[in-house]
Amino acid sequence: MLSKAVQKYINSLQVKKYRNQHQAFVVEGAKSVLELLHSNFEIQHLFITETFQKDNTAALRKGSSYEVVTEQELVKAGTFASNNAALAVASMSHLPPLHVVPTDLIIALDDIRDPGNLGTIIRIADWYGITTVVCSETCADFYNPKVISATMGSFTRVNVHYLDLPPWLQQQTATHKVYGAALNGNNIHAMQLKPEGIVVLGNEANGIRKEVAEQVNTLIKIPAFGQAESLNVATATAIIMDNFRRG
Amino acid sequence: MLSKAVQKYINSLQVKKYRNQHQAFVVEGAKSVLELLHSNFEIQHLFITETFQKDNTAALRKGSSYEVVTEQELVKAGTFASNNAALAVASMSHLPPLHVVPTDLIIALDDIRDPGNLGTIIRIADWYGITTVVCSETCADFYNPKVISATMGSFTRVNVHYLDLPPWLQQQTATHKVYGAALNGNNIHAMQLKPEGIVVLGNEANGIRKEVAEQVNTLIKIPAFGQAESLNVATATAIIMDNFRRG
Repeated sequence: MLSKAVQKYINSLQVKKYRNQHQAFVVEGAKSVLELLHSNFEIQHLFITETFQKDNTAALRKGSSYEVVTEQELVKAGTFASNNAALAVASMSHLPPLHVVPTDLIIALDDIRDPGNLGTIIRIADWYGITTVVCSETCADFYNPKVISATMGSFTRVNVHYLDLPPWLQQQTATHKVYGAALNGNNIHAMQLKPEGIVVLGNEANGIRKEVAEQVNTLIKIPAFGQAESLNVATATAIIMDNFRRG
Repeated sequence: MLSKAVQKYINSLQVKKYRNQHQAFVVEGAKSVLELLHSNFEIQHLFITETFQKDNTAALRKGSSYEVVTEQELVKAGTFASNNAALAVASMSHLPPLHVVPTDLIIALDDIRDPGNLGTIIRIADWYGITTVVCSETCADFYNPKVISATMGSFTRVNVHYLDLPPWLQQQTATHKVYGAALNGNNIHAMQLKPEGIVVLGNEANGIRKEVAEQVNTLIKIPAFGQAESLNVATATAIIMDNFRRG
């Protein structure tokens, strides 16, 4: 059974202030918890249903102690509307120092506020073999349960760094090409793209801030063939990364 | 002021049964309502805030009568957590009969359950100039407020047809190439794609059903460069459509 104290602790981790205070975060759902079990993250608590236990004996044999609880208890503790699998509390990990080389392909996010968008972008980065995502300090919090959940386990493989974007980008311009997604950019279908450089994507409503755009060498756009005014920022990231990877 | 009866009516339209009974649906938010005003949909009710009224005098001059209400009233009537702009009730339109020609590029969705995914796919279709989306009868309902909202206005330009997918696809195979997205498909980066044919995308968890897959000529996949196991179905649709359009 999930004690009241533990439930209260897990609930508190929905708030950034308490996540930072405890240096801990919540992971929910079968896929995410399984990826967590295969990662280097330290697990503080693991609560699973009987079904999940039966279906994942191999993954569970690997180590972490756990407690079997009901679906209702998982829902009460976490943020999901239903959860027939698992919920874990993990300790935040120490990021390796941010060190980029000119042959890297990197995603930089300027003020991406929606947790679902950030999580989806991390999943896309992982698909395209991009291990570094750089975020302006105003982006959604990596450890927000909605971000973690939207990554579908990719939070275990992508390093997300928060920093002041304009000066960092300025430092990189000596060694990296900096691309920025904008509706008035160059058509990516007509460009010869090498899979290296930094690609900046801007806020859902307002795009890239002026002070960030000043550090961009090349504006790029996804050509439109119909009448939609824009694409969701995660969708745009996916299409752009695909274009970089197809070369 | 929004009368209790009207509020109750609008609330009822969150449920498919009542939408069908009244042949009406709800449109929320500035962008979606503005697109509605520029479309051929008949508007039954239009509620706007003072701010929206001030900012959109030209769009409002065009016709529809409206009533100025508060943000609180919009939130109470609709599904948004906040809405400082507008909410409309529109009549369902009669779809033109589904008539496809071999040079069309068409998206077919097999059991896409999530309203946000369906809405995002409709927006992507509109971006790539695809005016026909075909859905299995188990897909999310086009008129679900979450679908409408996720289309960001593209619901006014894309015709979404619901039908029994396997026999329909079988009919098309005489004149159309039928592609299906699958993790074991051919690498789309290595294919010469013409922007025509029918592209089938399957359920979020289970992919394309067997009876649908039997009608597919060519399985296609988006090549992975990292370790994510899959992409969100809307993300995958976007990348595939981009590959078809770049030719």
